[in-house]
Amino acid sequence: MLTRVKSAVASFMGGIMAGSSNNNNERSGGPDLPLKYPYMRPKFLGLSADEIECSADHIARPILILKETRRLPWATGYAEVINAGKSALNEDQACCEVVLVKKRPIGSLTPRKLATSRRRSSLPNSDGMGTFESNDCVCPQDSEGLVFHYWALFDGHAGSGAAVVASRLLHQHIVEQLQGVLEILTNLASLPPTVLGEEPNHHPSPGTQRALTRAASLRGATGAPGSPCTPPTRFFVEKKIQHESLVIGALENAFKEMDAQIEKEKAIYNISGGCTVLVVVFLLGKLYVANAGDSRAIIIRNGEIIPVSTEFTPESERQRLQFLGFMQPHLLGGEFTHLEFPRRVQRKEVGKKMLYRDFTMTGWAYKTIEDEDLRFPLIYGEGKKARVMATIGVTRGLGDHDLKVHDSNICIKPFLSCFPEVKVYNLTQYEHGADDVLVMGTDGLWDVLSNEEVAETVTSFLVNCDPDDLHRYTMAAQDLVMRARGVLRDQGWRISNDRLGSGDDISVYIIPLMYGNRQL
Amino acid sequence: MLTRVKSAVASFMGGIMAGSSNNNNERSGGPDLPLKYPYMRPKFLGLSADEIECSADHIARPILILKETRRLPWATGYAEVINAGKSALNEDQACCEVVLVKKRPIGSLTPRKLATSRRRSSLPNSDGMGTFESNDCVCPQDSEGLVFHYWALFDGHAGSGAAVVASRLLHQHIVEQLQGVLEILTNLASLPPTVLGEEPNHHPSPGTQRALTRAASLRGATGAPGSPCTPPTRFFVEKKIQHESLVIGALENAFKEMDAQIEKEKAIYNISGGCTVLVVVFLLGKLYVANAGDSRAIIIRNGEIIPVSTEFTPESERQRLQFLGFMQPHLLGGEFTHLEFPRRVQRKEVGKKMLYRDFTMTGWAYKTIEDEDLRFPLIYGEGKKARVMATIGVTRGLGDHDLKVHDSNICIKPFLSCFPEVKVYNLTQYEHGADDVLVMGTDGLWDVLSNEEVAETVTSFLVNCDPDDLHRYTMAAQDLVMRARGVLRDQGWRISNDRLGSGDDISVYIIPLMYGNRQL
Repeated sequence: MLTRVKSAVASFMGGIMAGSSNNNNERSGGPDLPLKYPYMRPKFLGLSADEIECSADHIARPILILKETRRLPWATGYAEVINAGKSALNEDQACCEVVLVKKRPIGSLTPRKLATSRRRSSLPNSDGMGTFESNDCVCPQDSEGLVFHYWALFDGHAGSGAAVVASRLLHQHIVEQLQGVLEILTNLASLPPTVLGEEPNHHPSPGTQRALTRAASLRGATGAPGSPCTPPTRFFVEKKIQHESLVIGALENAFKEMDAQIEKEKAIYNISGGCTVLVVVFLLGKLYVANAGDSRAIIIRNGEIIPVSTEFTPESERQRLQFLGFMQPHLLGGEFTHLEFPRRVQRKEVGKKMLYRDFTMTGWAYKTIEDEDLRFPLIYGEGKKARVMATIGVTRGLGDHDLKVHDSNICIKPFLSCFPEVKVYNLTQYEHGADDVLVMGTDGLWDVLSNEEVAETVTSFLVNCDPDDLHRYTMAAQDLVMRARGVLRDQGWRISNDRLGSGDDISVYIIPLMYGNRQL
Repeated sequence: MLTRVKSAVASFMGGIMAGSSNNNNERSGGPDLPLKYPYMRPKFLGLSADEIECSADHIARPILILKETRRLPWATGYAEVINAGKSALNEDQACCEVVLVKKRPIGSLTPRKLATSRRRSSLPNSDGMGTFESNDCVCPQDSEGLVFHYWALFDGHAGSGAAVVASRLLHQHIVEQLQGVLEILTNLASLPPTVLGEEPNHHPSPGTQRALTRAASLRGATGAPGSPCTPPTRFFVEKKIQHESLVIGALENAFKEMDAQIEKEKAIYNISGGCTVLVVVFLLGKLYVANAGDSRAIIIRNGEIIPVSTEFTPESERQRLQFLGFMQPHLLGGEFTHLEFPRRVQRKEVGKKMLYRDFTMTGWAYKTIEDEDLRFPLIYGEGKKARVMATIGVTRGLGDHDLKVHDSNICIKPFLSCFPEVKVYNLTQYEHGADDVLVMGTDGLWDVLSNEEVAETVTSFLVNCDPDDLHRYTMAAQDLVMRARGVLRDQGWRISNDRLGSGDDISVYIIPLMYGNRQL
């Protein structure tokens, strides 16, 4: 095992990506193409090549932590550990930056051309090696533009290529999206205009009036409130869009653009696999948590748990995927059925009645089995073993453009979404103490520890620390990773109550929230 | 106004349905065809023809209540009022039954043939005129079969045909669905079998093994928990389905069958319009709340509000509908765009940037307007004025098979779903007092009163009643309808704080929950 790791490390050190050796599904754009970026660990860890090599020990599984707390803003804590052997390299990646969104100068480059010069937008730590005072006042808004804080976790599969690329570039796509609405976001005196460069228009055009008049309305609107004599207020004027919605839209489209870039650049680079993405952005007093995949973020405030993300898996997205398979049956390639069954149907069962559910159902019913029900179910398996087309256990993220069902030409990407769900937490609405934190973790953490166990672990760790020790959040992250990994016994990795520890890559941020209040 | 009502009433009394006179969108299957059932008010109200005529007074808007409490099980309260003129007749309908699901005798009729003999399944009150002791012990399970309690509200639009038919037949479709799983539901000793008439099979067939082996799994399963040496537990065996899931599936399919029956029978009957459906079924200790539309049910327990349904409207189902329009653009008939804009786009705005959102987004962003963005948005309007294709303000329910966009051949039915969302409340898990109730109401109630106002109104009414007075729940329902309707002033119907009262039909059940515990 160690040999395999060493050879993998040696090969990436030479600039050639070894890929995920035990995974049959990798269909990288071209293993002969150069890597866009070499394999790495998060820059803010500041690891040497030797340290990276040692970190990939699947037997010792050393827990890596931040060497210097001021490497990350807000005294954020971070810790990670490699998997127990499921892939040669650690397929998790992380990125944390404080980013300046610059105003576009007059006569500036178009957004597409800006792509090459965007890195200038970042603050000095954009090489990951700068330092922060935990309470330094990074002015959120100055003549130069707008500053946001950015924490991100990427969990790769079928190779680390997509995760590495996304960890290097996603925040730059966010910059680009925010740049387009920069002046609107900083002008809190008025709502975002419906049309750029126009006064708000509160009167429907004659064309709109005709369209609305010709279409009679069923239910509700026609004279609904009031007496029979009240004329119906027929003309819906204009939806008011809040600033917050523009930030959400910017994050959504940044994910889309990142995915498009990966697809495009696969023609010239070897970008293997796919990755989930969990991003936290702090902008103008609010935390935006954007999640595409099965990582998770929770806020622990005064001991209370506030979930701020939901996971996207074959089970949680079953109905969306079945609906797509039903609407576009050619995507199933004649090999899969969009119906769900509790297990594979056997040929001898044709004509019998079996439990099933369709995309419209959350309950189950019996149907008479027909020949086409012998196809493999689009969604199959339970819990962590649930898969789309027997292949992939996560339904949102970036990459996977060439992913196919084994030994077939059936593409899986149409069933995957690159769009995150974005939740908003208004930091300014609450007073946060030193033990109030946001915990971000990849599924390696949450597979073995519940929200309650994580909150209990973090809270009881922090209360025993010196509140002035800024390193406490990294120590808490280390403690959390240790509890999720466990210790290696004869029967494998074990955690409390002799449960199995996580054999997956585990990466954790612990972000204290009190600094967010201080910076406004 | 009164004249129009009288003529409408006269015409339905003669057995010919007048239809909804102020609605241009009605495309009834055939106004010359006979009605399947005549217009009616809920049978349990026991109204005479004269009383029905008087109830349709859009000026007086008399509140109708149960004359005799024992007409409904559990001393359920009920009250209703007609709209302020938006349609000639009250398009709400209601049905409440205690139903026996009989075992199918050996050599029984097939389900389809049973349709004609199903009414025998109901208990004596199936004509709506029987009486109940509030605490009578209807044995939930006897040698004859299984008993369930059933409360339903239907809110019609574009005519009352679909609502009348569904109020007469939906519970019989539920009977038929439950009959198929009757013996499984009553055998709590073992889980529902995956295949009927077989022992559970816990070992995958050789075919399944091959299928699972050939498809390598990305993410999670492969050796995830445990040491590198742990062989992956690759073979997912069989999903365990709970009894509760079969009831949910039965309700879902009963709605589907009801909708299919309406579609089929439109060829021979005049079944106008469509309707929302809110159903509460009490079976084997659990309340199942099935909702398709914008009615609502809440439980008030010890003063606390527990929502037990969610509404389905163009806004709440925006992403599903946009996704469908995107996947099947021919359904938009070249006249609509699946994109959402804050208002109609004007021709002069082509080339400018305007706010939009796609099916993947909850936030908003700017896009450059193109010619095809001039099409009318699939989803348009806000709140109660939101519409699908400028036509309908509710996205789930029964009927509407012939509904088309005005002056076009574009069908709206593909965007509507007949499937309910089913939520389960385990009555046996809690002790319920005399003031703990489930409130069901059509949107006429909830448009003007919040959950909190309804709970406050009901709770403060009930505490002032004699707890032994079984009529208290009907009196509370009457009070609630009165507060939502308000009183007619010069400026129309007004409720507290001089707000507008509801001009819509309003129907309300108040179901005390303590009787559910007593019957087990």
